[in-house]
This record gives sequence, structure tokens and C-alpha cells, in this order.
Amino acid sequence: MEPLAHTPTPPYYAVVFTSVRSDADPAGYEETAARMVELAARQPGYLGVESVRDGNGVGITVSYWSSLEAIRAWKAEAEHRLAQQAGRQRWYDCYRLRVCRVEDEYGFVRPR
Amino acid sequence: MEPLAHTPTPPYYAVVFTSVRSDADPAGYEETAARMVELAARQPGYLGVESVRDGNGVGITVSYWSSLEAIRAWKAEAEHRLAQQAGRQRWYDCYRLRVCRVEDEYGFVRPR
Repeated sequence: MEPLAHTPTPPYYAVVFTSVRSDADPAGYEETAARMVELAARQPGYLGVESVRDGNGVGITVSYWSSLEAIRAWKAEAEHRLAQQAGRQRWYDCYRLRVCRVEDEYGFVRPR
Repeated sequence: MEPLAHTPTPPYYAVVFTSVRSDADPAGYEETAARMVELAARQPGYLGVESVRDGNGVGITVSYWSSLEAIRAWKAEAEHRLAQQAGRQRWYDCYRLRVCRVEDEYGFVRPR
């Protein structure tokens, strides 16, 4: 995954998922997390993702979408629903999820 | 900093700042980053922050605000402007910043 997503001119939508991992099942978690990145990228309306987790198990994943409808469809996707359930059963101590409309975007790249 | 921000019922606003650190000046960066967290928390309209950086220098910081006006005022704050300038001169190889309206929020806490 590239660190910065290449998203279109706003408006578009973002899901900010902030989570704290439990100690449970790191191999199963890693495998499913990689699978979800791959599966999300194939959903209609997917625009990109940015994801970071630190050494304390705190993570922020921001996925970008063309519409609220695309976000709803991804939330309801069958394999993703099983992963969400496993997340609550095993992988996360807590999380917050925020659905956002992106209204403005800008950036910086260091000149070489 | 707590990993999850305690934000009010939506709507409110978020700034998603995704960045890649350069190798330059880690001590100066850490000091200023901590100072900016402290300074932001004292701005009108500040609601909270979540921030993660991984071992590869990729970071996502999401700050939450009551209005676009509060975000504009924080962007223009004098000491923050100096930090932004130093960020482009020394601390970041690249970044993207997205201003968002939070439309929905929910979460999970593992039952004890």
C-alpha cells in the first residue's frame, strides 16, 4: 500500500476507522486485514486507502469512497461482515468509525 | 493522548493529515508535534485528536473541530504556521490534508 491515497477532486467520502488491537490472534488478524484491503479495492466506488498502526496496537485506517451508497454496500459485503464480527469477538479492544464527506484536499511533496 | 477521541454527536468536522516523515531532525519534530497537540487543544472549537505513526515514518493524525471556521483559525494560528513551514522545509517528505464533515459515528468497546 502506498502511504498516500490518490483521490479525486472533492467532494467524495471517507471512513475514518480508529482502533486498538487486542493481543489475540495476530496471524489471523494480519491475514484478514490484508484480505479486506484487497477486497475493498474491488468494490464499486472505492477510491483508495491509507492505513497506519503503531507499536502500541493503535491504528487509523482511512478508506475513500465515491458515495455514501458505496460505503453502505462495503459495510454490508458478506465476507467483510464476517471480518467485522471477528473484529468484535477477538481482534479489537475498542474502535470508533466515522463516516465523513471530504470537502477540501491539498498536499505537499518535497522537491527533489 | 488517549487513542480514541470522545467527540459529540455529528455533524462536526475532521482534518485528516496523512504524512511521511523525512529522516531530518527527529528531536525538533517530536518537540514541535507535542507542542502543536497542546496548542490545538486550547483553540476554540477543538473537539479532540487521534494520532498514529508507524515504524516506517508514515503517520495519520485526525483532529476534530466544531466548524470549518475553527479549522481555518487553527490553520492560521501564528505558532502553528511556523510549524507548518518547518514541516515543509525539514520534517515531511510528503503529506495530504483533507478537510471533512463528519456525518455519522459509531463504535465498539469490548465488554469486560
